[in-house]
Amino acid sequence: MARLGDRAALIPAGGAQPRNFPANHLPFRASSHFLYLVGRGLSGAMLLMEGGSAVLYRPTPPPGDDLWHGPSHAADALGESIGCPVRPLETLKVPRGTLTLPSMDAVTRAHQESLLGRSVGGAVSAADEPLAQAMVETRLIHDDAAIAALRRVGRVTIEGHRAGLAALAPGKRAYEVWAAMQQVFTAHGMGHAYAPIVTPHGEVLHAHDLDAVLKEGDLLLADVGAETADGWAGDVTRTWAVNGRYSPTQAAIVEVVQRAHDAAIAACTPGRRYRDVHLLASRVIAAGLVDLGILRGDPDELVADDVHAVFFPHGIGHLIGLDVHDMEDLGDRPGYPAGRTRSDRFGLGFLRLDRTLQPGMAVTIEPGFYQVPAILADPSRVTPHGDRINRTRLAAFADVRGVRIEDDVLITAQGPEVLTPGLPNC
Amino acid sequence: MARLGDRAALIPAGGAQPRNFPANHLPFRASSHFLYLVGRGLSGAMLLMEGGSAVLYRPTPPPGDDLWHGPSHAADALGESIGCPVRPLETLKVPRGTLTLPSMDAVTRAHQESLLGRSVGGAVSAADEPLAQAMVETRLIHDDAAIAALRRVGRVTIEGHRAGLAALAPGKRAYEVWAAMQQVFTAHGMGHAYAPIVTPHGEVLHAHDLDAVLKEGDLLLADVGAETADGWAGDVTRTWAVNGRYSPTQAAIVEVVQRAHDAAIAACTPGRRYRDVHLLASRVIAAGLVDLGILRGDPDELVADDVHAVFFPHGIGHLIGLDVHDMEDLGDRPGYPAGRTRSDRFGLGFLRLDRTLQPGMAVTIEPGFYQVPAILADPSRVTPHGDRINRTRLAAFADVRGVRIEDDVLITAQGPEVLTPGLPNC
Repeated sequence: MARLGDRAALIPAGGAQPRNFPANHLPFRASSHFLYLVGRGLSGAMLLMEGGSAVLYRPTPPPGDDLWHGPSHAADALGESIGCPVRPLETLKVPRGTLTLPSMDAVTRAHQESLLGRSVGGAVSAADEPLAQAMVETRLIHDDAAIAALRRVGRVTIEGHRAGLAALAPGKRAYEVWAAMQQVFTAHGMGHAYAPIVTPHGEVLHAHDLDAVLKEGDLLLADVGAETADGWAGDVTRTWAVNGRYSPTQAAIVEVVQRAHDAAIAACTPGRRYRDVHLLASRVIAAGLVDLGILRGDPDELVADDVHAVFFPHGIGHLIGLDVHDMEDLGDRPGYPAGRTRSDRFGLGFLRLDRTLQPGMAVTIEPGFYQVPAILADPSRVTPHGDRINRTRLAAFADVRGVRIEDDVLITAQGPEVLTPGLPNC
Repeated sequence: MARLGDRAALIPAGGAQPRNFPANHLPFRASSHFLYLVGRGLSGAMLLMEGGSAVLYRPTPPPGDDLWHGPSHAADALGESIGCPVRPLETLKVPRGTLTLPSMDAVTRAHQESLLGRSVGGAVSAADEPLAQAMVETRLIHDDAAIAALRRVGRVTIEGHRAGLAALAPGKRAYEVWAAMQQVFTAHGMGHAYAPIVTPHGEVLHAHDLDAVLKEGDLLLADVGAETADGWAGDVTRTWAVNGRYSPTQAAIVEVVQRAHDAAIAACTPGRRYRDVHLLASRVIAAGLVDLGILRGDPDELVADDVHAVFFPHGIGHLIGLDVHDMEDLGDRPGYPAGRTRSDRFGLGFLRLDRTLQPGMAVTIEPGFYQVPAILADPSRVTPHGDRINRTRLAAFADVRGVRIEDDVLITAQGPEVLTPGLPNC
């Protein structure tokens, strides 16, 4: 509110979405802005901040609701637990000039537009820019409670990965491994922060199909993170050998990625520009691939010319907090401060974060190596690099389709703190 | 299509909904009508049936999509597997007078309205009535493939309940029991058909909070059903003693509910009116409560006067298929044939189905006994029954807040087939 001055702001929770029919619902996940400010997801509720005070407005249950859903929380008790008055949503009146952030769900967005008497848009409108900036400034640096939540979800995420590794065996389906990981999360009262990726096709960066049969000699890439009941996210990737031991080519690539991972984490210190962390990891990968004979040339030049991005096309990581890509509903505002914009270079253009790191920021570090057919078969992506890619040598690494190693890191004045510690890659 | 005559019909799958930010999604669940006709959930796709032939229209992935999501299925291969041509959604042209059914998601509904040039509405519009009726007639009687799917999901649902019972112990949280059940579903490549109810507060009929600590002497009501990858639902409830043995009062009530359950299932034969199954179960409950001294009077009169409904306020069950309440997006059309309408009596008015049973129909049978404060403390619900409710005797049953026993039943020419067999109540 201090950052908003005399402007009022309306923050909607969003609403539960029907699934198949009105009485069945998709799992409800409140807006992270709402969760940050209110501390609990209350479907259909809206927070109005105005003149230095806040009021929570929530829908009144329909008559007879207590027969099916039990008595609803008394407004007084709820208000005491969240620290502001609670009133019926029907009584909400929004002052002229109130700012808002567009809800992700279309029904709530229409409600916002009717309350505000103006278009709210799918992206942040110019009128709402000060609120978007205030939220970014508020959420960017995690406070002690947030840090505690991130440590907790980090530990449970790691425990889930251990269970996944323990469940791994040739002949199983990927969903059997995911079942073991999910069981850990659920038994801690947690959910998952994003659709799990558990796949022998690590080269498909967003592979959400969990049906694959795991074969002797395959790698299994597991990108899975827990989420606390109040919304804090974990985000960890490991790449395991299905039969428990890497082939020599798999071991060699995993070692390169691990070195990039370790070097990037070590570089997560206050004052460091995150793009430089990305470039450092890129250089370690380029140098490693030169050593293995897959790339030819000077590692610095290879990175300058984006040759490494043929195999590591995405960014080294992103902000993490209440969203696994924290505040990405606000576009590049959280990731790119004034004066910095996304690169149009291949690879670097997918970097979601280019801030100067400060204590209290939390990021992922997730280097990878992939043989993506859509890149390797695309002349526009590979021809410019001429003979710097050694296709003959690359063919020897056919059993390494995709490797990624990812952990979550808190920036502290003393240096990087791994929020997801103690989990070896295999 | 035969039921539609020369009318065209547009069936949308619905689309994945964003979760927190655009690149993250809630789990996508396609419309059951679409799943029934196409056999797989394809986010954003629409099926157009016209003049006896059908074409699937699907969104064209954006450029560069294959970098992130891998190569998309070729239209030819997809078309062959689903049995109709596949074309880009952008080329979809909808004939005048095409019928449709409103998607559950607002974005898809807006797309339907723009394609059809008319309002589609949140409920079925009068213009679309023939399509709604055709879908009801088609989906009401399950074919062999549907029956096989319902048997499969029934078995996995039962296996999940066994795992839940095995995980049960005083001091645990409800979500630890749910974690064991969910693990079984996920490890079979299945999800869950509805938000799980796993609660010591069975008297809250829709209690979705999984946080409760399970206490010695409590009952735990678990209403949990698996869902196959292509959408077929299971729906089973058991009420367990947290410490493994019922108290005498708990055992007495569970026995009454079990008798109602068994009698109702035995009555699920072709030609039987489902309302009579409900009334039969109600009578068994009323008679049992008379025997226990909780109700006074003649069981038939108690049922005629809805006294039993104070303790058993909901219906005996509902249709089950691709939706756990099958086709409930079409309102009462699937449950109530022409000439039958919902009762306005308390209890009976919550009965979701009043068809005459036929072979191929699948229903749930789920009698219960609850001490719902919102009912027992409501003079308008209890005063008319005078001294027929023995409050003094009822007080002895304070450790029985809510009991329900539910299985899924297929109607066959030979009689009822329990789709969820072999699971004792404790």
